[in-house]
Amino acid sequence: MSKTVSKTNFVYEVKKEVVKWRRYLHENPELSFEEFNTSQFVYDTLASFGDLELERPTKTSVVATLKGNKPGKVLGLRADMDALPIEETSDVPFKSKKPGVMHACGHDAHTAILLGAAKILTQRKDEISGEVKFVFQHAEELLPGGAKELVEKGVIDHIDYMVGLHVMSTLESGKIGIVYGPFTSNTDEFELKVIGKGGHSSQPDLSIDPVAISAQIITNLQHIVARNLEPAEKLVISTTMINGGTASNIIPETVSLVGSVRSYSQDVRENAAHLIERIVKGITEAHGADYNFTYHYGYSSVINDQQVTKCVEETVAEKFGENYIEYGEPFMGGEDFSAYLTKAPGCFVAIGAKNEQQGFDYPHHHPKFGIDENSLEDGLRLLINLPNKILSQ
Amino acid sequence: MSKTVSKTNFVYEVKKEVVKWRRYLHENPELSFEEFNTSQFVYDTLASFGDLELERPTKTSVVATLKGNKPGKVLGLRADMDALPIEETSDVPFKSKKPGVMHACGHDAHTAILLGAAKILTQRKDEISGEVKFVFQHAEELLPGGAKELVEKGVIDHIDYMVGLHVMSTLESGKIGIVYGPFTSNTDEFELKVIGKGGHSSQPDLSIDPVAISAQIITNLQHIVARNLEPAEKLVISTTMINGGTASNIIPETVSLVGSVRSYSQDVRENAAHLIERIVKGITEAHGADYNFTYHYGYSSVINDQQVTKCVEETVAEKFGENYIEYGEPFMGGEDFSAYLTKAPGCFVAIGAKNEQQGFDYPHHHPKFGIDENSLEDGLRLLINLPNKILSQ
Amino acid sequence: MSKTVSKTNFVYEVKKEVVKWRRYLHENPELSFEEFNTSQFVYDTLASFGDLELERPTKTSVVATLKGNKPGKVLGLRADMDALPIEETSDVPFKSKKPGVMHACGHDAHTAILLGAAKILTQRKDEISGEVKFVFQHAEELLPGGAKELVEKGVIDHIDYMVGLHVMSTLESGKIGIVYGPFTSNTDEFELKVIGKGGHSSQPDLSIDPVAISAQIITNLQHIVARNLEPAEKLVISTTMINGGTASNIIPETVSLVGSVRSYSQDVRENAAHLIERIVKGITEAHGADYNFTYHYGYSSVINDQQVTKCVEETVAEKFGENYIEYGEPFMGGEDFSAYLTKAPGCFVAIGAKNEQQGFDYPHHHPKFGIDENSLEDGLRLLINLPNKILSQ
Amino acid sequence: MSKTVSKTNFVYEVKKEVVKWRRYLHENPELSFEEFNTSQFVYDTLASFGDLELERPTKTSVVATLKGNKPGKVLGLRADMDALPIEETSDVPFKSKKPGVMHACGHDAHTAILLGAAKILTQRKDEISGEVKFVFQHAEELLPGGAKELVEKGVIDHIDYMVGLHVMSTLESGKIGIVYGPFTSNTDEFELKVIGKGGHSSQPDLSIDPVAISAQIITNLQHIVARNLEPAEKLVISTTMINGGTASNIIPETVSLVGSVRSYSQDVRENAAHLIERIVKGITEAHGADYNFTYHYGYSSVINDQQVTKCVEETVAEKFGENYIEYGEPFMGGEDFSAYLTKAPGCFVAIGAKNEQQGFDYPHHHPKFGIDENSLEDGLRLLINLPNKILSQ
Repeated sequence: MSKTVSKTNFVYEVKKEVVKWRRYLHENPELSFEEFNTSQFVYDTLASFGDLELERPTKTSVVATLKGNKPGKVLGLRADMDALPIEETSDVPFKSKKPGVMHACGHDAHTAILLGAAKILTQRKDEISGEVKFVFQHAEELLPGGAKELVEKGVIDHIDYMVGLHVMSTLESGKIGIVYGPFTSNTDEFELKVIGKGGHSSQPDLSIDPVAISAQIITNLQHIVARNLEPAEKLVISTTMINGGTASNIIPETVSLVGSVRSYSQDVRENAAHLIERIVKGITEAHGADYNFTYHYGYSSVINDQQVTKCVEETVAEKFGENYIEYGEPFMGGEDFSAYLTKAPGCFVAIGAKNEQQGFDYPHHHPKFGIDENSLEDGLRLLINLPNKILSQ
Repeated sequence: MSKTVSKTNFVYEVKKEVVKWRRYLHENPELSFEEFNTSQFVYDTLASFGDLELERPTKTSVVATLKGNKPGKVLGLRADMDALPIEETSDVPFKSKKPGVMHACGHDAHTAILLGAAKILTQRKDEISGEVKFVFQHAEELLPGGAKELVEKGVIDHIDYMVGLHVMSTLESGKIGIVYGPFTSNTDEFELKVIGKGGHSSQPDLSIDPVAISAQIITNLQHIVARNLEPAEKLVISTTMINGGTASNIIPETVSLVGSVRSYSQDVRENAAHLIERIVKGITEAHGADYNFTYHYGYSSVINDQQVTKCVEETVAEKFGENYIEYGEPFMGGEDFSAYLTKAPGCFVAIGAKNEQQGFDYPHHHPKFGIDENSLEDGLRLLINLPNKILSQ
Repeated sequence: MSKTVSKTNFVYEVKKEVVKWRRYLHENPELSFEEFNTSQFVYDTLASFGDLELERPTKTSVVATLKGNKPGKVLGLRADMDALPIEETSDVPFKSKKPGVMHACGHDAHTAILLGAAKILTQRKDEISGEVKFVFQHAEELLPGGAKELVEKGVIDHIDYMVGLHVMSTLESGKIGIVYGPFTSNTDEFELKVIGKGGHSSQPDLSIDPVAISAQIITNLQHIVARNLEPAEKLVISTTMINGGTASNIIPETVSLVGSVRSYSQDVRENAAHLIERIVKGITEAHGADYNFTYHYGYSSVINDQQVTKCVEETVAEKFGENYIEYGEPFMGGEDFSAYLTKAPGCFVAIGAKNEQQGFDYPHHHPKFGIDENSLEDGLRLLINLPNKILSQ
Repeated sequence: MSKTVSKTNFVYEVKKEVVKWRRYLHENPELSFEEFNTSQFVYDTLASFGDLELERPTKTSVVATLKGNKPGKVLGLRADMDALPIEETSDVPFKSKKPGVMHACGHDAHTAILLGAAKILTQRKDEISGEVKFVFQHAEELLPGGAKELVEKGVIDHIDYMVGLHVMSTLESGKIGIVYGPFTSNTDEFELKVIGKGGHSSQPDLSIDPVAISAQIITNLQHIVARNLEPAEKLVISTTMINGGTASNIIPETVSLVGSVRSYSQDVRENAAHLIERIVKGITEAHGADYNFTYHYGYSSVINDQQVTKCVEETVAEKFGENYIEYGEPFMGGEDFSAYLTKAPGCFVAIGAKNEQQGFDYPHHHPKFGIDENSLEDGLRLLINLPNKILSQ
């Protein structure tokens, strides 16, 4: 019984450290691929726990391996560490000290939680059958993403399961969001330049009007979702940027467009890329124009594994109670956690961090974004209880 | 002076014959390429005048040549003779005796006037320097048109000038319409079948929707006039027929469209044909559909010659008075008189035949179409005075 | 034990009767709202079972009530009885004797199965706690549907659960299709007349072109699914019929369109109806045209109740084995069974009847449609086992 | 005879002064409404001729009145004086001394020619029956234009005829361009803001997409020229600028468009303005969006008077020879000379100034624009011979 008390005291102390670490990281944010100080801080902190094998697979990432005292499977736990090029405008005491850079997506929390989990699990090493790999990933916010790089480095080659979490200012603090199947979407973009022939606005016959042709392209693109998509599938194609023209009496030479394409299935995604270009080609040919078209494949959708997600769900039910669970809908944002899932089944889970009364209800990437710090404890408790659940399967 | 009197009496008698002939032809209309009785009547009547050389270039056409007593140039005068597949519903005493066939465009008048002109000019043979060819043409109403056939037979190979007239129920009786340059338009058509893939209305992804694709084609076709036409040129493209679908819950396999294309210049016409198909091709390719497309070149536009038209204008001014002249706008109907103008310069002239009080104000091709018979005399007077004016140039 | 044997023998005999009844009904099909002979046959057959209370809520429907010997809840079982205006072209010995009318959707099977179930359950009356209502419904194939009429007559006012089945030539014989949630879609239609102003094809300025305007409407309608629909929702809008124009050189006065609208949720459905008309109104106003628009609300979607469906699933698992179950996707056809679900929770279940080797793989409503008669036995077995499962809840 | 000689010598001297004046003005260009030095130079120069009544109707314009020795009608001659905000890049010795300002449209020539004409005609005062008003106008290049201002000041209230000229780098030096009827077009613009509702690119249902709606507007606008315009009329509507969107994953709140509208007739112009807004209104309403729309009426089309143009044509024929005349097509540029024509009939005439060998073939408003200075003499000769021709009518 004394042991239990001491265990609890230790966890209590780590919780306080997690808050401290998170605030330190929040004050010192670093942009994607530039997480030099952050990764060093993570490395040094992990080193202080003892018993962890540490690696630096890339300049700004850290991987720590904890071997249990019995052989078994390998579980990866991932935190992302990078911040965003946003000027913080909130009033927290640990506000960003770096002008124009801010942890506006909660990666500071993810890193701190995973550090805390590493500390506690290291202490509980004897209870673990198998291994836990703590993956402190860089550059989630910037294509091609740090996850892809770590996967290519072979960091997770021997992992059996992968779990990641995300604090969410859109989910009430006191809830954990469980999603079976698709969690995030494929997040692709296209760039299009419609190349006509410039001329005076009064001589359309001597020009090829890229504005009118671009309008037809946008209009025809609506067919893909409305006429070419299996009704049960999900796809959104939005032309979000259009720019052309310099003077009211000049038909411009070109118009530039940018679009966003969101989907879940790989088939739908590839078909959309094909259909968009088919329409661009057909419409420009219909009007004698030319075009440059680039389709950028962004992060793939995160598809949660049935079995791993079941483990997460059961852990939440057992440790937090049934009413902590919020069954979520997939949402159409992007997340490079999907890169790990090309190697091993896994689950991405949402930790509620919204607290309207405390002013923590700004959307992610907002200059006033913040989180209820109770979410730190929830994330921590989930991660320290998950390994035994998953590795005992 | 006695001579003048006798001449006048003769003309007076011929005028009465023209009315009689026109009414006989009106009662006995014949469809295009079937003008057997009509052409025989014309042949026999011309034969009765003496001094005319008669030919039958095709089964239902007649050409009569009058040689003046002095050598000179050759003027062609043309009348068309065919009727339309329309059931006459007017109440004239000389109403069509043939069910479903009617002279609803005034070709009966043209034939009668030209017969009268032939009779009078034959009598005045001695005053003519050169030749007059009276061309009684078949099949103006039906593509490819009798004029083209006669031109190909070489009938007008040696003609220097060509003149034709048309009684018009849209021009007041007592007026003669003079148009410099374009008189009628190129009158083309296109037929289009958009070939998609049929299927159930709830499974658009398994179909290729020819209705939605046809809509895009029609919409894109508007660019040709709005964006590809020199503003000073004239072109009208109208999609006039569209048909597709058999049941509310079935996406049809095909949609059929018909369009009308009117223009004046040959360049604009050929470019329009090219651009229409380019759009059809581009849009169907944009959506993975197929198509059948046919562009039917109809009659070419009648472009009146500056010099010949001047002669006509002066003749009207001298013989009818200045206020008889109505300077008309080109109109976008079709007329196969244009075929002659590929061989010789000429003029097509409008004879006012509208008389609202008498009920002669129905549009051409209307079942109640009729003409003020004063137009017969006007047409006759013009034709008998024109040869000396033109041939003396 | 002798009792069991006799029970089995009795069921065996009824199975043979079900086949016989189904073939009789197949030979004598009747159209929607004209099921006079069919309903009389059903009435007389039910009367021969004894112990059933019979009603004729409408001229061509029959409802039989079986009261168990213990009080309890009320379960409704529904069969639809009407045939289709299709000429049968298959070669079965019991081919339709009525020219142009055919049971091409399996309602003959539904009626025969429910008669068999009524006969067996009547014999097992003592085992039932509660009541079973056998609803022999007319007119499923024709709007507004017999189900709606029966609901309005109060026939199912006191029902606690409702179950219906459908033999399916698209599901293998030997399978029973279970769907949680939406089973069929809202199946609506719209009719649209675009009213322009007719005229000559060469004078677009004097006309209002309903062909070009209709094309814009169809094109703009694509926005509803592509831009106005929550990506997780399902909606299909197909313009399936378009007709306008009588001559190549005449811009028509009007164009007529028909469209199909399929959805699951009532919100999406009503919003679609609103958005379609908003677009029609906006586009016609944009071009100075007028319109007539009618939105026809068809059958609502059948949404299977979680609890009742669970009972059906368990019954299948227990009586047929787990591998009999096929978890289906919702499909976008229509079914008026939804009318009952406005009054009580229920489940609509698919009985596999496809047998490619026997030639029973034509789609529903096909002139060669047929079913594997093993499906009759499967349907019968399901219905006689369901009441105790559901009523014991 | 001595008088003739002296007259010729005097004209010869003035020609040299015109070149000098033009070069001075070219070196010292001033922007529209800022022609302070230019107008003072004009005023002082005119004052030196004697016999002219001088006015300053606005701060930067000058009007000089020459009364002939016999009473008669009043002829206005107009020169515009303003330069453009263009940096000159040509190498002439009299290159602009003012950075970013340049006489790139030939107004320096117009002013110099009219000064020369005023000097010569003042000397020939005795030969003039009636009056000549020399109107040195400011601000032709900038809406609302100086011409409108002078008309409103009443400057030309008593004028009977108005003549203006323009040196043209697109017409060969040695030619004078004569146009009957429309010379320039109505040059209007519209500004449109399509107001939707911004949002995330993956949630189109929560947004109102102004990009897709703008595309539909542009597409529907094509109907105006293609379907609503009398084929013989001229109209060009070009959407020349479109801008919207800030990020690939954000549906923007608004899209801004600018368009150019060119026409000749006032009816067509006003109808176009009406139809454009009707389409904007209809399409935005069709999609639940809002809009701001402004139609800017620019300069009206210059329509040359039949009789005055005849005088100009005859003057050119008599003084330059028939082969100097080039019958031009109307062009779709704008010119505020039209403001004068609301008060009096007139003619705007083109003076050829193109000389490819000398490098004077850049288009107007080009940084290397230049003119063959022979055009100065041609303009001068035309203006000094015109008054007697016109005033003697």
